Amino acid sequence: MINEMYKAMLTGKSVIRELSEYATERGKVIGYENVFDYSLGNPSVPCADEFTQALSDIVKNSDPVAVHGYSPSLGITSVRTAVAESLNKRFGMDYETKHIFMTSGAAGALAHALRAVTKPGDEVLTFAPYFPEYNEYVNKTGAILKTVKPNTENFQINFNDFEACLNPNVAAVLINSPNNPSGSVCSTETIKKLAEILEAKQKEFGHDIFIISDEPYREILFDGADSPYISKFYDNSLSCYSFSKSLSLPGERIGYVAVNPRCTDSDILAVIFGQISRGIGHNCPASSIQLAVSKVLDKTSDLSVYERNMNLIYDKLVSLGFEVVKPGGTFYIFPKALEEDAKAFCMKAKKYDLILVPSDNFGCPGYFRMAYCIDTEKVLRSFDAFDKFVKEEYGISGK
Amino acid sequence: MINEMYKAMLTGKSVIRELSEYATERGKVIGYENVFDYSLGNPSVPCADEFTQALSDIVKNSDPVAVHGYSPSLGITSVRTAVAESLNKRFGMDYETKHIFMTSGAAGALAHALRAVTKPGDEVLTFAPYFPEYNEYVNKTGAILKTVKPNTENFQINFNDFEACLNPNVAAVLINSPNNPSGSVCSTETIKKLAEILEAKQKEFGHDIFIISDEPYREILFDGADSPYISKFYDNSLSCYSFSKSLSLPGERIGYVAVNPRCTDSDILAVIFGQISRGIGHNCPASSIQLAVSKVLDKTSDLSVYERNMNLIYDKLVSLGFEVVKPGGTFYIFPKALEEDAKAFCMKAKKYDLILVPSDNFGCPGYFRMAYCIDTEKVLRSFDAFDKFVKEEYGISGK
Repeated sequence: MINEMYKAMLTGKSVIRELSEYATERGKVIGYENVFDYSLGNPSVPCADEFTQALSDIVKNSDPVAVHGYSPSLGITSVRTAVAESLNKRFGMDYETKHIFMTSGAAGALAHALRAVTKPGDEVLTFAPYFPEYNEYVNKTGAILKTVKPNTENFQINFNDFEACLNPNVAAVLINSPNNPSGSVCSTETIKKLAEILEAKQKEFGHDIFIISDEPYREILFDGADSPYISKFYDNSLSCYSFSKSLSLPGERIGYVAVNPRCTDSDILAVIFGQISRGIGHNCPASSIQLAVSKVLDKTSDLSVYERNMNLIYDKLVSLGFEVVKPGGTFYIFPKALEEDAKAFCMKAKKYDLILVPSDNFGCPGYFRMAYCIDTEKVLRSFDAFDKFVKEEYGISGK
Repeated sequence: MINEMYKAMLTGKSVIRELSEYATERGKVIGYENVFDYSLGNPSVPCADEFTQALSDIVKNSDPVAVHGYSPSLGITSVRTAVAESLNKRFGMDYETKHIFMTSGAAGALAHALRAVTKPGDEVLTFAPYFPEYNEYVNKTGAILKTVKPNTENFQINFNDFEACLNPNVAAVLINSPNNPSGSVCSTETIKKLAEILEAKQKEFGHDIFIISDEPYREILFDGADSPYISKFYDNSLSCYSFSKSLSLPGERIGYVAVNPRCTDSDILAVIFGQISRGIGHNCPASSIQLAVSKVLDKTSDLSVYERNMNLIYDKLVSLGFEVVKPGGTFYIFPKALEEDAKAFCMKAKKYDLILVPSDNFGCPGYFRMAYCIDTEKVLRSFDAFDKFVKEEYGISGK
């Protein structure tokens, strides 16, 4: 008896993945270099050399029984300590080893954080536009994802709608800044206001409301971005991190949850995560990868290509008359489509071998996402296709 | 609001882990070499050199964007193909790439297999003695673990009790052979009879009953053991494997589920596992580890120490008059305690720095488990402690 719930999910194919598969197929016909594939958020720069060196050293020169042996269920102790120290130094926090729980990337981090601070039937609020996988991440815990309407002026928080959404069933607020898909970064002012409202609501409702902060793009920040460390501003907060983007290691599935030392039950939350692991088959990220990242916690890949690409694309889009908020980080940009139906817009773009993702699944219809983690040379070559596309389909000529 | 269910789990500490922690503490006092620690099933032999070589090569000589990039959610395709081919060659199966799903060790494999073929409220049967973590693995899916009484004569299946336990709510049978904790191996005769009964019950109840076969000890077999590949004998079967024990890589969290090509919905089960992953935060084992194991699928560590230790311990126990079934594999042995209360027995053994695990949590009271994945030299030194223990506590003198 195959579980019907999971079977039913098979029909709901990811739009992003479908577009990416189309791009691959199209590449077989005209050469992949001629497909301007802005669909997937897959880092295009190699991992930092220091990571390769650290992993090689560990594999070749350490005792294999120690390196490949069971990690304690909360993560290797020395790794947890190193993460705490790195965060304290960088963000002025006071994490101890006991506050850090190593996970299989941000997805693993969110799986533990969400289960720990919600129970089935609770509501989790997130802000549109949001990463579509949040639906699966949240709803499969038994909690219910509700979305706050977007603030399309600047992709900060729509506080009017946020306050309207808050009710006693809300157990957690899931925030993602720098944001996929908009590239926007919540400002200090925004985070302060968010914290203030939640403090008041905790008192009003008489229970905790946790901020679960999904921070895989924390290190990909552009010139001038005001990107506060959220746990500095709100006690009941769990930072979920992944090294996928900062070190270009998405396949290695390595990240962590950092429990705010000032949150409710901060001393035992990591141990609770360990209990959750037993039921979901998690049991730690790979030991050698844990050890290797702990040697390069303050390094990143060369991320400069993302800002270079962003500036080029932003200027191009503006010159073509697109409405677009300038990203403060990530490798995404989220312009308004040239017609109300973003799917129709993106279908037309396909004719010009421009692979753009319509925004409907991000909870913010009428926009499209471009993931510009591709070579700058290809970005520049795509501009002719853009010119042709908007001219032929919408009668627009660039400045 | 911390989830009370997980909070409550904090008080139920693992007996094995408590004993292991005691052994470590005691080691600080008298030197760990003088603590005869038979508590933990942690491989004592290094991984195969070929694995170290393969991983080093991949890390140093391959394109880092490819090696560390996102793995497809079902596992890296070339790795899945290699696993299918290896299983086909070794066990005469006919797996294709689509039948293999890469997981974070056996715990990850079981998390997916259990969710795919049960729904909340279904029963899953397992056979005592059994690995205590099965309680968490099964019950946290929403299904209910029920146990079949042990056959203490030879630790094959107690078919009388098995038939009594079968009812229309049973969706799956979870079997672990070679077995933790008994070291016993289900014979071809046992597996044939199991398959026959389940075939009949599937017809009677009008629905599938899956065998979920937990096989991390498949490669640790002793002279003369009759260890059939279970999926050869029953169509609705899912093989859950881990490289933790065969390659001594428990910290790397790498394994797979192999879907029997003749089971219900065999073409889509791996895709269903992929959907399950989205809700539990799994998202594949580490990509570099997937690639490295795929190069050494037919290798193992030097596992000979386990059989050598088993023979020494078995002979010693028999000479002291213990009732004990000779293991056919694994690195465990499961003798009857010298008094009814196995906990009391193991408490007394601690006085002699013998760390033995009482069997109560394995669903088979009155026995104890010894994990003999330790140096043979230490095994031999432990025999004096055994002599002293049984003489002083139970008045027994060895032959």
